[in-house]
Amino acid sequence: MRAAIYELIKTDRKTKARRGRITTLHGAIETPAFMPVGTAAAVKAMRPEQVAETGAEMILANTYHLYLRPGQRVVAEAGGLHRFMNWDRAILTDSGGFQVFSLGALRRITEDGAEFRSHIDGSTHMLSPEKSIEVQNALGADIIMALDECAPYPADREYVKKSLERTTRWLLRCGEAHKNGDVQSLFGIMQGGVYADLRRQSALEITELDLPGYAVGGLSVGEPKPLMYEILDGCVDYLPKDKPRYLMGVGTPDCIFEAVSLGVDMFDCVLPTRVARNGTTLTSRGSVNIKNAKYKNDFTALDPECDCYTCRNYTKAYLRHLFKAGEILSAMLLTNHNLTFMSGMMAGIRNALEEDRFIEHKREFLSKYYA
Amino acid sequence: MRAAIYELIKTDRKTKARRGRITTLHGAIETPAFMPVGTAAAVKAMRPEQVAETGAEMILANTYHLYLRPGQRVVAEAGGLHRFMNWDRAILTDSGGFQVFSLGALRRITEDGAEFRSHIDGSTHMLSPEKSIEVQNALGADIIMALDECAPYPADREYVKKSLERTTRWLLRCGEAHKNGDVQSLFGIMQGGVYADLRRQSALEITELDLPGYAVGGLSVGEPKPLMYEILDGCVDYLPKDKPRYLMGVGTPDCIFEAVSLGVDMFDCVLPTRVARNGTTLTSRGSVNIKNAKYKNDFTALDPECDCYTCRNYTKAYLRHLFKAGEILSAMLLTNHNLTFMSGMMAGIRNALEEDRFIEHKREFLSKYYA
Repeated sequence: MRAAIYELIKTDRKTKARRGRITTLHGAIETPAFMPVGTAAAVKAMRPEQVAETGAEMILANTYHLYLRPGQRVVAEAGGLHRFMNWDRAILTDSGGFQVFSLGALRRITEDGAEFRSHIDGSTHMLSPEKSIEVQNALGADIIMALDECAPYPADREYVKKSLERTTRWLLRCGEAHKNGDVQSLFGIMQGGVYADLRRQSALEITELDLPGYAVGGLSVGEPKPLMYEILDGCVDYLPKDKPRYLMGVGTPDCIFEAVSLGVDMFDCVLPTRVARNGTTLTSRGSVNIKNAKYKNDFTALDPECDCYTCRNYTKAYLRHLFKAGEILSAMLLTNHNLTFMSGMMAGIRNALEEDRFIEHKREFLSKYYA
Repeated sequence: MRAAIYELIKTDRKTKARRGRITTLHGAIETPAFMPVGTAAAVKAMRPEQVAETGAEMILANTYHLYLRPGQRVVAEAGGLHRFMNWDRAILTDSGGFQVFSLGALRRITEDGAEFRSHIDGSTHMLSPEKSIEVQNALGADIIMALDECAPYPADREYVKKSLERTTRWLLRCGEAHKNGDVQSLFGIMQGGVYADLRRQSALEITELDLPGYAVGGLSVGEPKPLMYEILDGCVDYLPKDKPRYLMGVGTPDCIFEAVSLGVDMFDCVLPTRVARNGTTLTSRGSVNIKNAKYKNDFTALDPECDCYTCRNYTKAYLRHLFKAGEILSAMLLTNHNLTFMSGMMAGIRNALEEDRFIEHKREFLSKYYA
C-alpha cells in the first residue's frame, strides 16, 4: 500500500504537460499543483481554514525548522503535524537538507550526513539520512523527502557526479530507515546539476527503487532560466510516467508554466507568502506593489478578476493604508490574495489541459501577466 | 434625532451597576460593553468578521492616527470608516487629544487647541476642537468624542480647574462645529482630576448641553486604584441616568468590574490586543503567559472554559511554538482569544445583572481570575 497514489489523467498533445491526481490519506491533490509553504507548522499570517479556502490541497512544512523548534517529539506527542497545526489536508515535509546546506560555514558534509549548528541557539546537530527520516516519520506528513545533497551552481562536473552518487547512497539509507510506508510516501530526489548525462545517471539510479514519486532537485539555484528549462526538459524524460514529478522551490508564474509544459506536476515556493508580507501582490495583470503612492485613493479591488476574500472586501487604498501603518492585517490580506492567485493559476492550467488549450492558455496568461 | 440612543434596562439593587443598550445606525450595543481598539482602522491581527465573532459590537478607532495616515479625506472618499475597513457594526472615534497630549515635547497647548508635530514625519499640525470634529465628521463613526484636555496625575488644583474649564469651552466649540448630529452622536468628556468638587463643576458644565452620552476622562492616568474608584464613585452621581457613561482607556478585569459597580456602561482598552502580541493571554483562571516553558508539552486548550476558535482548535503547546517561532499566526490566535475573553466577561456581567447576582458574580469571577 502507498500513502500517496498518483493517477495520470491526461497528457497534453502539444506539450509534455500532464493533468493528474495524487490521492493521500488527507485528501486528493489535483495536479499540476502548487503547495504553499508553512515552514514552522503554520502558513505565515493565515489560519489553516483560510489556506484551504484559497484552494490549497497540500502544504509544505520544513523539517529543519520543526526539528529545531518545537522538536519532532512535541509534534508526535500532539498526534502529528496535521493535528498539531489543525490542518486536515495533505502535507509534504522536506528532508531538512536544503536548509542545512544553506547554513554555509555552520555546516560540514560527510558521507554520514551533514553536521550543523542551529541558527537559533548555536547547538550542534547531525542530519543524516536516517535522522531526516526519523524526524519526518515523527512529524507524519503524507509525503516525505529523501535527504539529498544539492550541488550549488556553478559546480564542476566531478563535484556534481560525486554529489549525485552520494545522494543515491543516501536515498538507499532513507528507504531502509523509513518506517511508515503505509501512511507516508517517500519521494526520491534527482540531482546532477546542469549536466544532462549526470541527470540521466541520477534518474536511472533513483528510479530503481520504484518510489511513489520523484523530485527534481538542484535546479532554480542560480543558473540562467533557459539553461534550467533545457536541463529540466531532459530530466523529466528519465522519470517514470506513472509517478508524480515535483520541482522543488519553484516558483514564479513563468517558471511554473514552463515546467508544467515540460511535465512537472508539483511545485512549492515561499514567493507568494513572502512577497505578500513585503507589500507585493500577484494579480492577473502582473505584480502590484501596494506601497505605490498611486493607490492612495484607489478604491478598486486589488485584482478585478479575483474573487478572494481580500478582493471582495477591500480596496487598494485600504490595503496600502494597512501596509503603510505596519498593520498585521496587511500581511493577512495580501497573503490570502497571493495564495488564492497561485491556486487559481494552477486551476486555470488544469482546466486548460482538460480542454486541450494549454499552449493557448499559457501564452494568454503570461502575456497578460508580464505585459 | 440622535445617532446613538441609550436605553437603561435595569439598575442593580445592591450597586450602581446598570444593564442597558445603545442603539446606533450600525446595530445595538448591549451594555456594560467593552470596545476593542482598532487604532488605524484595523483591530490588530484580526479580520473584521473575526472581531464580530468574538462578540464585539462596537470598536474604537483613533482620530490622531487616521488624521495623519491615511488622512480623513481618503476615508471619507472611501465612504467612511465602516466601509473603508469593512466593519458594519458601530464605531467610536476619540478626539485625537489624548494621543497629541502624549507627544510631550512635540506639542504645545493653547486656548485654540493643541499644536503638534507628527510622530510619523515631523510635520506640524493644529488640533483644535473644530478640527477634531471636522476630522471625526469625515471619518463617520457612530459616536464621536469632544476634544478635551486631560490633566496629568499628579496636577495641582489650580491647573486642573483651568484645564476642566477649557475643556468645557472646547466642548461648546465642538458642539458648534459638529455637522452630522443625525448620524453621529457627540459625547462630552468630564475632567477635574482627583478633586471631587472639580469633577462636580465639570459635570454640571458639560451636562448643560444635554449630549447623548458622557465620558469620564482623566482617570487611570497614574493615580492609585483606590483613589480612582473613590473619584469615579463621585463622578457618576453627577451624570444623568438616562445617558451612557464611558470610562476611557479602562481596562483590566478588576477595574472594569469595579467601574461597572459604580455605574459605568462603556470601556475601551488596548490591553487585550496589545498583550496578546506579547504572548500574554487572559483566561478564566487569570493571565497565562504562553511563553512559559511548562507549556511546551501541554496539549490542553488555553482556557478550558472558553470555546473561541483558538481554544477549540489549538493547544498551548502549539500556541507556545507559534510565539517562539515569531509566527504572525500567534498574534492572530491570541488576540482572537483575548477579545473573546473580554466579550465573554462583559456578557457574564450583563447576565449577572439580569439575574440579580452581580455582586456574587463579581466576587466569584475576580477571586478565580486573581487566585
